[in-house]
Amino acid sequence: MSPVVDLFRRELRVINVGLREFADTLREVGAQHVHVDWRPPAGGKPELMAALSELEERFDAVESANREAFERICGSQPVWIDVARADEVVPGMRQNVVLHAGPPLRWEEACGPVRGAVIGALLYEGLAGSPAEAERLVQNGEVQLSPCHHHGAVGPMAGVVSASMPVVVVENRAYGNRAFATLNEGLGKVLRFGAYSEEVISRLRWMRDVLAPALRDVVRASGGIDLKQIIARALHMGDECHNRNAAATSLLVRGLLPHFGSAGVSGAVVAEVGEFLSRNDHFFLNLSMAACKATMDAAHGMPNCTLVTAMARNGTRFGIRVSGTGDRWFTAAAPRVNGLYFVGFTAEDANPDLGDSSITETAGLGGFAMAAAPAIVQFVGGTPEDAVALTREMGEICFGRNQTFTIPVLGFVGTPAGIDVRKVVETGITPVINTGIAHREAGMGQVGAGLTRAPMECFEEALQALAGL
Amino acid sequence: MSPVVDLFRRELRVINVGLREFADTLREVGAQHVHVDWRPPAGGKPELMAALSELEERFDAVESANREAFERICGSQPVWIDVARADEVVPGMRQNVVLHAGPPLRWEEACGPVRGAVIGALLYEGLAGSPAEAERLVQNGEVQLSPCHHHGAVGPMAGVVSASMPVVVVENRAYGNRAFATLNEGLGKVLRFGAYSEEVISRLRWMRDVLAPALRDVVRASGGIDLKQIIARALHMGDECHNRNAAATSLLVRGLLPHFGSAGVSGAVVAEVGEFLSRNDHFFLNLSMAACKATMDAAHGMPNCTLVTAMARNGTRFGIRVSGTGDRWFTAAAPRVNGLYFVGFTAEDANPDLGDSSITETAGLGGFAMAAAPAIVQFVGGTPEDAVALTREMGEICFGRNQTFTIPVLGFVGTPAGIDVRKVVETGITPVINTGIAHREAGMGQVGAGLTRAPMECFEEALQALAGL
Repeated sequence: MSPVVDLFRRELRVINVGLREFADTLREVGAQHVHVDWRPPAGGKPELMAALSELEERFDAVESANREAFERICGSQPVWIDVARADEVVPGMRQNVVLHAGPPLRWEEACGPVRGAVIGALLYEGLAGSPAEAERLVQNGEVQLSPCHHHGAVGPMAGVVSASMPVVVVENRAYGNRAFATLNEGLGKVLRFGAYSEEVISRLRWMRDVLAPALRDVVRASGGIDLKQIIARALHMGDECHNRNAAATSLLVRGLLPHFGSAGVSGAVVAEVGEFLSRNDHFFLNLSMAACKATMDAAHGMPNCTLVTAMARNGTRFGIRVSGTGDRWFTAAAPRVNGLYFVGFTAEDANPDLGDSSITETAGLGGFAMAAAPAIVQFVGGTPEDAVALTREMGEICFGRNQTFTIPVLGFVGTPAGIDVRKVVETGITPVINTGIAHREAGMGQVGAGLTRAPMECFEEALQALAGL
Repeated sequence: MSPVVDLFRRELRVINVGLREFADTLREVGAQHVHVDWRPPAGGKPELMAALSELEERFDAVESANREAFERICGSQPVWIDVARADEVVPGMRQNVVLHAGPPLRWEEACGPVRGAVIGALLYEGLAGSPAEAERLVQNGEVQLSPCHHHGAVGPMAGVVSASMPVVVVENRAYGNRAFATLNEGLGKVLRFGAYSEEVISRLRWMRDVLAPALRDVVRASGGIDLKQIIARALHMGDECHNRNAAATSLLVRGLLPHFGSAGVSGAVVAEVGEFLSRNDHFFLNLSMAACKATMDAAHGMPNCTLVTAMARNGTRFGIRVSGTGDRWFTAAAPRVNGLYFVGFTAEDANPDLGDSSITETAGLGGFAMAAAPAIVQFVGGTPEDAVALTREMGEICFGRNQTFTIPVLGFVGTPAGIDVRKVVETGITPVINTGIAHREAGMGQVGAGLTRAPMECFEEALQALAGL
């Protein structure tokens, strides 16, 4: 009797791998079986499977590089040490340079909110007297655009930084590198969402003339504010430190209070600055971003490392950088955001995904730490259960868990950190990003907030570059 | 054929009510069945069942009173409006009166931490030059003890308030009543935990001379701080506003910052006060308590109302007050606390349950809002799942849900509020309380934190009084 015939004469105990339809048939005929939910890695695409195999050949080198990068991510010590004019501290910053979010961008392809923010920055700098003049300056090359990430900086949404804008200086005390970000303006009609009305420009002037000098004196008097500790505490207080920063902002301001006193800030300025900080739950966002940038830069540029060190969007393209491929960007079209809209706005009004703020997800916060922030679903949509599921899902594509950033409802497990390009491509799971939504037209401002996913093409391209294919 | 025989000839479909053992037998013989988990109400005690029946006769009057009381609880608007010397604002406060937590207490039965705190208060007031002299003053009646609750006040742990201590004034803007509490001293060796060393007394003097005048000026300049809004926000930020007040304290300080400026508080004082507030995560506790006292007093003294308006412990006895029975206390021995101990201490060192802080549970916060505060399990023990289960369980004994105080992880359902004496006795579920643990000896201080349950006897006695039996 052939082994096959023999097999079918015995009681069948079937393991079905892959397509569930076969398991359905087995259930219908009452056959004992187990279904294993399996799909071919990398969607079964031959060139990607070849790249994964190539990296598998270098497994020890890759794992060792990734482990070191992960340790640098977890070991980073971002500290807010100063506030200064951008052109005093940001490398390569000049009067005729305007920084923007995301990968490199040509003016012709810039989206509405980036155009609006660049116009606003040139009005604010006094380089242009009108929006039309501002556009001309960029078109004829008198003003040059450059990505924040090329200057150690990060900016939320449009991410525009101009020469005289004040920036926070965050130093990674474990590795010595620095990162920069503007001060957060609050919600609504603000430059970073592409608004450039007189209200927006005069707020920027107040931030330069009143807020920034006060915070500079306060932060210097403090000897440095430990941002990592604030983030760790805020994750126990309902923040994910991207779209929800209410706890981190409150902890920050409470920590600054004594230094307002010791720095000798005048009562009138304390009143103004205090009023601004007490109304802006998002003030910590830019500090969170600079902390994450300082953290991820410490793990950047390591040969064989397959961990992502930046995800950023310019509103037209979504780009990633990977440690092992250095400063090269891998880009794809910026995705749409699924979210909740402010009254009077709909998805029709929304610009595609925008901003450097996804540096927080790159560092394991934001969408990756959603389980810590159940209340955020009121702002971005979904349920607290969805938030927990997203954090668990992100664990599938990360090197490990950052044990400094623990999540109480998950039994104090750390946030998933160190996105591995190999795992993204292999599993088909793309990073989730938790973000604001700008109006697609210049001059309008924020219209909502929601969730999106990084485009798979960036990771596929990066994987092939890592494999040298 | 008899109906019984006929029954057993048909296929049996059994509903088993009460003892699970019968259902076990049914399962063993494979009989189709459903088990209903039922126990006789009130543990089957005839006198309690009679009281429940009596109140059932008055169902409409009781429900109507309870509904109005619940609406007053939910509609209260506690606002922090001032800081003043106790003898300037607390009704009945005099130089030779010392207030304490919980129901009335004779000196001979006072526990160690209450003795220590009373001694400390008399040293601080300069009424006694030594602990022995302080004890004599109380023993011979020159100084009288009186419960905080008899003066519209509440105090955490020993709850001691003396004439010149600064207190916060909280006004219930919806109903016009006021409540009072001391300023929180921080953790460790502090008066409220029974410590009275020179370090403790000099901190109290600093609070009187520096902290209180500054906060008075700041709060007056603010026009009043909305405590209900802070509590509602803090419940979305991991606090339950009894044993965890990190978010509420941070929100409070952030909200006060501009008023430090407009009140013209000097830089040196901002530095000192800011340092104190930045180190004390529990600062908001006393404000939470005063807010809850102002809230529950608005629902107190309503005929036929079976809702609890105060739970308080003096370290020897646990007492409750019920709206429909006015100012009468129903007491039982203070229970032990199950908790986590600071390094070097064990359950052997612990005083029984102590303090007026269970006014927070009475108002639906603290143990009743544990689901909002998963990180608190690091302080009081248990798991985040236990915390969720406790909030759900407390829903069984409350009139309703306070929709101002919502809990994100429970789908934004409100905290259970309005403990109904009838439901406690009927279900056998006693209120959970989330509390600090004092050393049982005078002069020592805090040794841990944990959970306990209000004693059933208080509710049984109250039920019979409500029924007029």
